[in-house]
Amino acid sequence: MSQEIERKFLVKGDLPEGKTTRIVQGYLSSVPERTVRVRVKGERAFLTIKGIGNETGISRYEWEKEIPVQEAEQLLKICEPGVIEKTRTEVEVGKHTFEIDHFFGDNEGLVMAEVELSDEAEQFDKPDWLGEEVSGDKRYYNSYLSQHPFKTWK
Amino acid sequence: MSQEIERKFLVKGDLPEGKTTRIVQGYLSSVPERTVRVRVKGERAFLTIKGIGNETGISRYEWEKEIPVQEAEQLLKICEPGVIEKTRTEVEVGKHTFEIDHFFGDNEGLVMAEVELSDEAEQFDKPDWLGEEVSGDKRYYNSYLSQHPFKTWK
Repeated sequence: MSQEIERKFLVKGDLPEGKTTRIVQGYLSSVPERTVRVRVKGERAFLTIKGIGNETGISRYEWEKEIPVQEAEQLLKICEPGVIEKTRTEVEVGKHTFEIDHFFGDNEGLVMAEVELSDEAEQFDKPDWLGEEVSGDKRYYNSYLSQHPFKTWK
Repeated sequence: MSQEIERKFLVKGDLPEGKTTRIVQGYLSSVPERTVRVRVKGERAFLTIKGIGNETGISRYEWEKEIPVQEAEQLLKICEPGVIEKTRTEVEVGKHTFEIDHFFGDNEGLVMAEVELSDEAEQFDKPDWLGEEVSGDKRYYNSYLSQHPFKTWK
């Protein structure tokens, strides 16, 4: 189990281009204290367990193992209702890689960018398309979105 | 993910002897539709995901991976409150192996035996110490016991 340190932003304007992968994911547990996620990402699959974020919402315990896609597809069948579908585009900006998630289905309209850091204070370039920061806002956790899709927000 | 077929019984009278291992386990999800269990069993550790049982309560989907003990100990820290502690004794009876779980802590007083079968109708010898069958009674799921310990039952 390692510490995941990342900052998350809404994306505004035109989406930048980059390598894009389709992601389908469900939750065996969507409670923020202990999320258990089953993810199929392109041709690979992962089981990921996360603890709750710290007070800044930027750091979070994370445990991840790659699993066979076929097993992930079986596990998706017993996940909570509310599977997330999105594409992920990787965009290099300066020394960092932003992952831009473009959501579909019940979360259509939501586009978010994440950047992984080696410590919370690490600096990074902010491109024009980077909008409001939502790090630590639990409404933007994918686990929350699976139960409260973006389209149902007021 | 495979099908787990097993029958579960209370144990009465003197406990038979056999190879005994200590088990400590917690749950990342204790809901019966999708339990996610972290188990340290002697010198080894496992992450196990189970679906809900079928109508007889004897068959249940199960997915299991061995994980390093150190990772399991980290994951136990973020599990739901209510860790289960027990010893498991393996006893050969005829062609089958019974696993007898002797619970401690908040579940002190509970002793259960499980036998794994290759199909639901498979016959097996019933030793004297085998008491009432509780297959499919969700109160006897370890996930339920973690949230509603045996000592609190009326």
